[in-house]
Amino acid sequence: MIKVVAIGKIKEKANKELIHEYIKRLGSYTKLDVIEIDEVMLTKNASAADIDLVKQKESQSILNVIKSHEHVVLLDLKGKTMTSEQFSDYIFHQYTYGRSDLTFVIGGSYGVDQILKDRANYLLKLSDMTFPHQLARLFIMEQIYRAYKIFNNEPYHK
Amino acid sequence: MIKVVAIGKIKEKANKELIHEYIKRLGSYTKLDVIEIDEVMLTKNASAADIDLVKQKESQSILNVIKSHEHVVLLDLKGKTMTSEQFSDYIFHQYTYGRSDLTFVIGGSYGVDQILKDRANYLLKLSDMTFPHQLARLFIMEQIYRAYKIFNNEPYHK
Repeated sequence: MIKVVAIGKIKEKANKELIHEYIKRLGSYTKLDVIEIDEVMLTKNASAADIDLVKQKESQSILNVIKSHEHVVLLDLKGKTMTSEQFSDYIFHQYTYGRSDLTFVIGGSYGVDQILKDRANYLLKLSDMTFPHQLARLFIMEQIYRAYKIFNNEPYHK
Repeated sequence: MIKVVAIGKIKEKANKELIHEYIKRLGSYTKLDVIEIDEVMLTKNASAADIDLVKQKESQSILNVIKSHEHVVLLDLKGKTMTSEQFSDYIFHQYTYGRSDLTFVIGGSYGVDQILKDRANYLLKLSDMTFPHQLARLFIMEQIYRAYKIFNNEPYHK
């Protein structure tokens, strides 16, 4: 089973539609659970300590929905990149080794706390470029879908 | 001025909406021209030679809308990656050196011909992962918008 845990609700209707299209398509391959966690709001003149507190709270909320046996891939700008083929291999390698519950985590605007990084089994960087985390949701969903297409050797447009 | 030349029309209404949102926002910073070029259709049992021909035709159509003074950045899986900050620096570096017409090119599903690669001033890789070229349109548009926000030192959500 694939679980996607993300901070914040997708606001743009159009982006929501695109993401749902991939969720729907993935449904024919795997059980999929998407959990959206409310972002913690910051006041305008937030200090560095305030931001740290937001990261701690959000990371704790994420950890609360992750069970101990889940294999966690955290999207992180300091993570490692993979090609789509490597990503597909990575996912199915976990399944082969009995890690059947994969959880992908997308943090909030300010990033995540170290406690969540420590829990993660892999830090994945989608791109050297920074994307809005709302678009990151779309990208990772498309890549998970692509991973299944690659594994099943099914044609998929580029 | 920024020009974006791409093969194929964006089919999904939702993706079109997201792209148009960035086009609209970019409008307050720069003149922007988006040129969509019809993709060349392939028959089901296309040979490698047929595919080469598609790439040649599409690349020629792209070259037809590029003037000789334009600085061309081609999205290419064999290109180099940049961070968003480097991408912003890159764009404004061109402006500084009088190259005021920047053209971004997104090829079709089969890639582009060598003749277009030779014309390109820079090959840019958005990610090690392969995305549908329809999503690549969205990604590059967001990054161009982000480049202007970074250059102008304006706040922008991650």
